Amino acid sequence: MVEALKIGLLGLGTVGTATAGILLSPESRHPLLKEIEIAKVGVKTLDKRRAVEFADGVLTTDLEAIVTDPDLDIVVELIGGLEPARSLILKAISHQKHVVTANKAVISRYGEEIYRAAAEAGVYVLIEAAVGGGIPIIRPLQQSLSVNRIDSILGIINGTTNFILTKMATEGSDFSEVLTEAQELGYAEADPSADVDGYDAADKITILATLAFGEQVSLEQVSCEGIRQVSAVDIQYAERLGFEIKLLAIAQREQSGLQVRVHPTLVPKEHPLANIDGVNNAILVEGDPIGQVMFYGPGAGGGATASAVVSDLMNIAAMLKVSQAVNPLLKIPQHPRRELVPIQELVTRFYARIICIDRPGVIGNLGTCFGKHKVSLESIVQIDFNNGFAEIVVVTHNVKEENFRQALAEIPHLDAIEQIQIPSVLRVLREK
Amino acid sequence: MVEALKIGLLGLGTVGTATAGILLSPESRHPLLKEIEIAKVGVKTLDKRRAVEFADGVLTTDLEAIVTDPDLDIVVELIGGLEPARSLILKAISHQKHVVTANKAVISRYGEEIYRAAAEAGVYVLIEAAVGGGIPIIRPLQQSLSVNRIDSILGIINGTTNFILTKMATEGSDFSEVLTEAQELGYAEADPSADVDGYDAADKITILATLAFGEQVSLEQVSCEGIRQVSAVDIQYAERLGFEIKLLAIAQREQSGLQVRVHPTLVPKEHPLANIDGVNNAILVEGDPIGQVMFYGPGAGGGATASAVVSDLMNIAAMLKVSQAVNPLLKIPQHPRRELVPIQELVTRFYARIICIDRPGVIGNLGTCFGKHKVSLESIVQIDFNNGFAEIVVVTHNVKEENFRQALAEIPHLDAIEQIQIPSVLRVLREK
Ligand SMILES: NC(=O)c1ccc[n+]([C@@H]2O[C@H](COP(=O)([O-])OP(=O)(O)OC[C@H]3O[C@@H](n4cnc5c(N)ncnc54)[C@H](OP(=O)(O)O)[C@@H]3O)[C@@H](O)[C@H]2O)c1
Ligand SMILES: NC(=O)c1ccc[n+]([C@@H]2O[C@H](COP(=O)([O-])OP(=O)(O)OC[C@H]3O[C@@H](n4cnc5c(N)ncnc54)[C@H](OP(=O)(O)O)[C@@H]3O)[C@@H](O)[C@H]2O)c1
Repeated sequence: MVEALKIGLLGLGTVGTATAGILLSPESRHPLLKEIEIAKVGVKTLDKRRAVEFADGVLTTDLEAIVTDPDLDIVVELIGGLEPARSLILKAISHQKHVVTANKAVISRYGEEIYRAAAEAGVYVLIEAAVGGGIPIIRPLQQSLSVNRIDSILGIINGTTNFILTKMATEGSDFSEVLTEAQELGYAEADPSADVDGYDAADKITILATLAFGEQVSLEQVSCEGIRQVSAVDIQYAERLGFEIKLLAIAQREQSGLQVRVHPTLVPKEHPLANIDGVNNAILVEGDPIGQVMFYGPGAGGGATASAVVSDLMNIAAMLKVSQAVNPLLKIPQHPRRELVPIQELVTRFYARIICIDRPGVIGNLGTCFGKHKVSLESIVQIDFNNGFAEIVVVTHNVKEENFRQALAEIPHLDAIEQIQIPSVLRVLREK
Repeated sequence: MVEALKIGLLGLGTVGTATAGILLSPESRHPLLKEIEIAKVGVKTLDKRRAVEFADGVLTTDLEAIVTDPDLDIVVELIGGLEPARSLILKAISHQKHVVTANKAVISRYGEEIYRAAAEAGVYVLIEAAVGGGIPIIRPLQQSLSVNRIDSILGIINGTTNFILTKMATEGSDFSEVLTEAQELGYAEADPSADVDGYDAADKITILATLAFGEQVSLEQVSCEGIRQVSAVDIQYAERLGFEIKLLAIAQREQSGLQVRVHPTLVPKEHPLANIDGVNNAILVEGDPIGQVMFYGPGAGGGATASAVVSDLMNIAAMLKVSQAVNPLLKIPQHPRRELVPIQELVTRFYARIICIDRPGVIGNLGTCFGKHKVSLESIVQIDFNNGFAEIVVVTHNVKEENFRQALAEIPHLDAIEQIQIPSVLRVLREK
């Protein structure tokens, strides 16, 4: 591969724009990205304002011309919906183009047809972005985890419904109220059915089950219930009994075969999926001998989903290069060895526990001393007394390690401080 | 690749034995595993009892002969420690063998030397098992996530210390007590220093930082503090202030460069890492544009670690095959389309909320009816009363969906039941 790989992007909406954004700013990312070039972009209307700019002639409404263009190596389908997405993907394949898509609706229904066509044409079809947004789950399932016998996949894979259920739980409100709120916030569509009736999750679990168990799962056979029937009362009762209610997508190997389903589920509070809140997604995979592994992160959003799209592009670039030499994904570090930033320059928060004789002025003295060294305190609490001693716990805001250490060193010399001990100094996760 | 790939296994301890276990039972795992064959196994003593059996001549104490054997394609180093592991790896590479290793101590110190040698020899060195046990983290960092600008990696990557801190928090006991307990349970070594002083975590974060930021990190520059100084009192104060104490390994991009460190850290309770308990590991990666993703699972143990070792073997097999055709990791499902198991045959637990007129015999009637249909109840609670009505919440043990539905259908016809409504029927995550 001497020249850059030329890609044709179908769709410049939420995900398409973010995908272009990554490819157009390759600095500090994987070096292979510099070898991928956006040659054509297909959209519905040319005269829309766009957040990214392209050279003249790149933007077009003729998507057929893109998927048949002999100059292109890869087609990235990000228009969504069933048609023309399916036909464009198939036509791209028949024109020897590799395909990357985030379209779970098309893959869950026509995946078999598409993969068969791709195998015949000898091209790749990569779909990391179709499930779990930015979370790497498709590739781990196909690669790292596939040496296991997979027993089950349990996923919170629809952010909208998880947002709604989380809100219902924290606010005690009913489904319809929270749905309206989610629609106003842009977390739910005007027609919410695909999300709240579980169809989107069904698409996604069909794809995951097909990969994990190596047999093509039929979407129509997936049993699917949404969250409309879940009431605030049920969430409260579940809570009292020790459960959270989550919309789970489940694929399980049973003695008699495979079972795949989507339904609201009471999850014990100590289960790893019980703590997954808001629009986040999580996928828990159980297998032998690995046990349980979980993948957690943003299940949607332009940037996160684009991260998955571009990782697929990069993998195609890597696979096309692999015959030349050692796989470029496994290269040794590109940058020379540099000094690390020393710990004194660390900016973090601190927790310190201080014990000294309890007398007036102690807190004031400490406060002044920290202030002098630019250590801003979040809290200073005198928590405990033992035979004339005071125990004081201090938590700081972000501060430079060096400054904090200087303040600590000065404390024993303060007027009001006697018989001091500082048994604990710990760091606190820093503020953003 | 017409023949199977021949591997030489160095070490048949916890991880080596589990690795052999996976390779010797390839059914229901990835089909590529059938093309990997254990040709030689190197150990220290021949006359130990082993959990796996090999043909005569496979087991040997001559490890030099293995790494120089012209018939072998891949060497898997699972003996641990610095020497002879490092020399054996380098010799294997110089004899054109691909290498898979779980040895974080060797890679964190000699990774640069080893990768350089591998690049010259044109062989792969894969290290998925060296960090996070079975959790796929090395490959996602090199591939899916590497299109992002990585800002930070925060990891709980030492199971022993996380087990100790979790126990200290739940039992209020002090470090030394819990350490003794952990040693008795086999979760901590007789010489616990590598774990409790943070050195093992420092090895691992050195490896992760090197991959994520593309520059070779020097282990000696990693600032490292262990958990010996953390007391039960600090854990309690932290708790009151809204924090958990965790041993975090942190690699962060700062304006002035990279900072890499290991130290006990107060983590806000609502942070995703705060809930990671016991021997589990979790790695939180933050980047642009992806945001936060987290990988969670068993950070050690023979089976889990072997899953990562074998996934590396499979990836080498796939990369060696890739020039022939389309990457075999991306193949279409191997099994024909089959019927899914219908939802009536699902075995799960149920939650049902029942409202009816409050009169004697209601609970008894319900109990008898469920029993008749083989529905065993975990709890049946009459929670609420409204103007003459009773609200009853039922949670079952595992039951066949069909049986539960039949019981529900019969309830309205029971003697004591009048004006019944069943506003909610939800599934509960099933018992093991
Ligand atoms: N948004 C997310 O968070 C997310 C997450 C995971 C997966 N996905 C998937 O990613 C895909 C794209 O989603 P999105 O949110 O980016 O969609 P979007 O914002 O609605 O953008 C769709 C883009 O496709 C173009 N388009 C649509 N139909 C077209 C047609 N018939 N001919 C030409 N162009 C057409 C539109 O052109 P105009 O700009 O001219 O209107 C627009 O640029 C979908 O498959 C979705 O399921 C999205
Ligand atoms: N155990 C885990 O959970 C875990 C998790 C992640 C990574 N790892 C890494 O995996 C590697 C192996 O760990 P392990 O727990 O499996 O170790 P282990 O149980 O102690 O087994 C070590 C094996 O190597 C053999 N061996 C050691 N030194 C040797 C020498 N000089 N010559 C020949 N054979 C030698 C031993 O032979 P004999 O059987 O004859 O004594 C034994 O079979 C280490 O790098 C470790 O850090 C382990």
